[in-house]
Amino acid sequence: MPTITAIDTYDVRFPTSLSADGSDAMNKDGDYSAAYVVVRTDQPGLAGYGFTFTIGRGNDLCVSAAELRGRPLLGRDVDAVVQDLGGTYRDLQSDSQLRWLGPDKGVEHLGLAAVMNAVWDLAARRAEKPLWRLLSDMTPTQLVDAADLRYLSDALTRDEAIAMLQDLEPTRASRIAELDATGYPCYTTSAGWLGYSDEKLRRLCQEAVDAGYRHIKLKVGADLDEDRRRLAIAREVIGWDAALMIDANQVWDVPQAVEWVSALAEFKPLWIEEPTSPDDVLGHATIRRAVAPIGVATGEHGMNRVLFKQLFQAEAIDFCQLDAARLGSVNEVLAVYLLAKKFDVPVCPHAGGVGLCELVQHLSIFDYVAVSGSLERRVTEYVDHLHEHFVEPCIVEDGAYQLPTAPGYSAEMHESTLTAYSFPNGDFWAGEGAALASRALPALSRGGLLAAR
Amino acid sequence: MPTITAIDTYDVRFPTSLSADGSDAMNKDGDYSAAYVVVRTDQPGLAGYGFTFTIGRGNDLCVSAAELRGRPLLGRDVDAVVQDLGGTYRDLQSDSQLRWLGPDKGVEHLGLAAVMNAVWDLAARRAEKPLWRLLSDMTPTQLVDAADLRYLSDALTRDEAIAMLQDLEPTRASRIAELDATGYPCYTTSAGWLGYSDEKLRRLCQEAVDAGYRHIKLKVGADLDEDRRRLAIAREVIGWDAALMIDANQVWDVPQAVEWVSALAEFKPLWIEEPTSPDDVLGHATIRRAVAPIGVATGEHGMNRVLFKQLFQAEAIDFCQLDAARLGSVNEVLAVYLLAKKFDVPVCPHAGGVGLCELVQHLSIFDYVAVSGSLERRVTEYVDHLHEHFVEPCIVEDGAYQLPTAPGYSAEMHESTLTAYSFPNGDFWAGEGAALASRALPALSRGGLLAAR
Repeated sequence: MPTITAIDTYDVRFPTSLSADGSDAMNKDGDYSAAYVVVRTDQPGLAGYGFTFTIGRGNDLCVSAAELRGRPLLGRDVDAVVQDLGGTYRDLQSDSQLRWLGPDKGVEHLGLAAVMNAVWDLAARRAEKPLWRLLSDMTPTQLVDAADLRYLSDALTRDEAIAMLQDLEPTRASRIAELDATGYPCYTTSAGWLGYSDEKLRRLCQEAVDAGYRHIKLKVGADLDEDRRRLAIAREVIGWDAALMIDANQVWDVPQAVEWVSALAEFKPLWIEEPTSPDDVLGHATIRRAVAPIGVATGEHGMNRVLFKQLFQAEAIDFCQLDAARLGSVNEVLAVYLLAKKFDVPVCPHAGGVGLCELVQHLSIFDYVAVSGSLERRVTEYVDHLHEHFVEPCIVEDGAYQLPTAPGYSAEMHESTLTAYSFPNGDFWAGEGAALASRALPALSRGGLLAAR
Repeated sequence: MPTITAIDTYDVRFPTSLSADGSDAMNKDGDYSAAYVVVRTDQPGLAGYGFTFTIGRGNDLCVSAAELRGRPLLGRDVDAVVQDLGGTYRDLQSDSQLRWLGPDKGVEHLGLAAVMNAVWDLAARRAEKPLWRLLSDMTPTQLVDAADLRYLSDALTRDEAIAMLQDLEPTRASRIAELDATGYPCYTTSAGWLGYSDEKLRRLCQEAVDAGYRHIKLKVGADLDEDRRRLAIAREVIGWDAALMIDANQVWDVPQAVEWVSALAEFKPLWIEEPTSPDDVLGHATIRRAVAPIGVATGEHGMNRVLFKQLFQAEAIDFCQLDAARLGSVNEVLAVYLLAKKFDVPVCPHAGGVGLCELVQHLSIFDYVAVSGSLERRVTEYVDHLHEHFVEPCIVEDGAYQLPTAPGYSAEMHESTLTAYSFPNGDFWAGEGAALASRALPALSRGGLLAAR
């Protein structure tokens, strides 16, 4: 009967702003970061690893939030925790003082995500299964018990959710066998960051095609003429049979989004991603009606299940891009997958960042096996950055995620990564990165009773 | 030419959970708290005071967020800052790394609110005017320049906003004279917290009537029979001419809200406040259609202007209860007032907590003077708690806020309050409150390179 003995937290940051990896119209200088949590136990070799993803400053806030969120786990019996993952989640989530800071959004929710991602990793390791397999072995009732369905009953009842899962339960094994042979299809964003030169764009598009990708995504929204030039280059390289997606990272108001996307219609994008504020359900619906047949996609900043419920109810999106580290871990992700199934919207998870690919591969596989049962109009993001920091990095071949086999949620980082990139005292940040680090440190005095007055 | 020399921050918490003040169906044990910010200058006697409001654990996160948000102000010329309050706000808001943590919601936004509330207080003190007067002396163009209108142009353009303000500009002085005589009407929530006994409820309702209040609000949502009993007591005391409001603090799903509120219709509530998730625009619209003529009110957890825009667009609410410490300070509050005017929805700000009454009195007065020009269906919350901690507490007489006369936003706390209630080292928390304090401290180890592994 192992017991949880410690919740260790780490502020891990990578200096990605130095190379313009990840640059887009809204986020020009992100330092990809993880608020990383290790749930330790007294059983040798047994721990759970999880994180949320940020882009630099404020990652320490998420670490602090994870500390507050994880506190109730200390001293608990591991098996009691992992055998009631719904109850564990609701217990941590329902701290009413922390709830005031959201509810279910922003830093307090990112902290919950980091902790519960580690708990799900622990559950999968305890069961000696990769997370997608742990989920695929759960009964419909067990899955629905784990899902956070609060505030959703006007759109999806518990009984409906169970019935949907029961429909596909008898045929799960055949879909696992299929994915075992083919992998789960993905697309690449590695080519299209705004900070890249035309030459680099052309070369990376060609490399993507050569590597077997049938979907390419480009950032847009900073300058219309430049967008036209870059999209023309991309179409020249990938041709017109491959899918081209565009991503504005929330830079437009609603009328401007309609105008700008319409001006790029000649390049036949499959979707426009994040055309406006991620909170604007009705705005996305307006844009969708105006730019059809170009699809509307959003979700990486989708704060919680209540937002996604409304995106579905308002028929606001064609593609749901949930984020595994922004939603409240698998518990809330399950709720969004179930809603998406009910409303027949494909889920194409957001990935990239630090470790998001490692997480979402499990979710997409599980979705096909047990929830949607479909690959139609579904393709999961893949970005070729920072995988070397993970003990079991995702494996992509011929444009498809290969099925993970190691137990867990693939979230464990190398010890050497923590040593190098812990902020601000890791080897990199204390050494060659010191000047960059100073940009991210508060220069203010915490007043309290000690302030100079 | 004074210069900003320091941004001092304070984690101030009051042990309100000990007396059940503030208890409701969702928040049973809040310790009312403020992440308090002082913008100091090198001119003797000139500083700006501001805060955001929380209910305990996690207040430290908001303090840290305020530190990150306020950092760019250090060393700036005070007059340059206060003469371009829109530009100052946009500059602090647009930190793209911090934006990732929201955007415009949760802890990072509460931190922005605390800092910019202090900047507005500084601006009013620099002008030697109470904040409502500073705002009432600004031209329509100056007000719209200060307002955060990003993502709103599908509902309200800049030109429309200016035109609305111009309509009322010539008659501002007459409304100031009127309020100077009458004050701004308010209602009390002090009677109706869930944790109070029937005897206390009856006594407090009678005291409210005797004090001149025409509106009383009660918490509901924990137990239907108990709600019926308490509402019957309230109606017995206040009669049927006074208005009775009920507040569920987000405990219901949408269908349950419709059912429960319908079961309380016999008590003729003016509004049902926070019937469900504060994020659920479409859910509020559904509830509103179902429970009419009972009104729907929400907003204290309304995270940002994009949410309010949609509440208006979807005709989801009858009363807008914006929160002065959750929205991004006066800059975002202005945007919501302008939207409310456009959609003809009365704004009845949320107050109570710590210091919210001190803030919202300025906003309500300004709204009448320069934006809505109406008192119809408008009444601002008042709760008789914790005012003794403020240097210039609000003054309520005959159920109305009296016009503040001191320069600033009424946000300055007494030094003795900081000495006593700074967390966790103030006199109270280090002394008699130590046991309560331990519940709010993280028991976890920040790992980094130092964790026991």
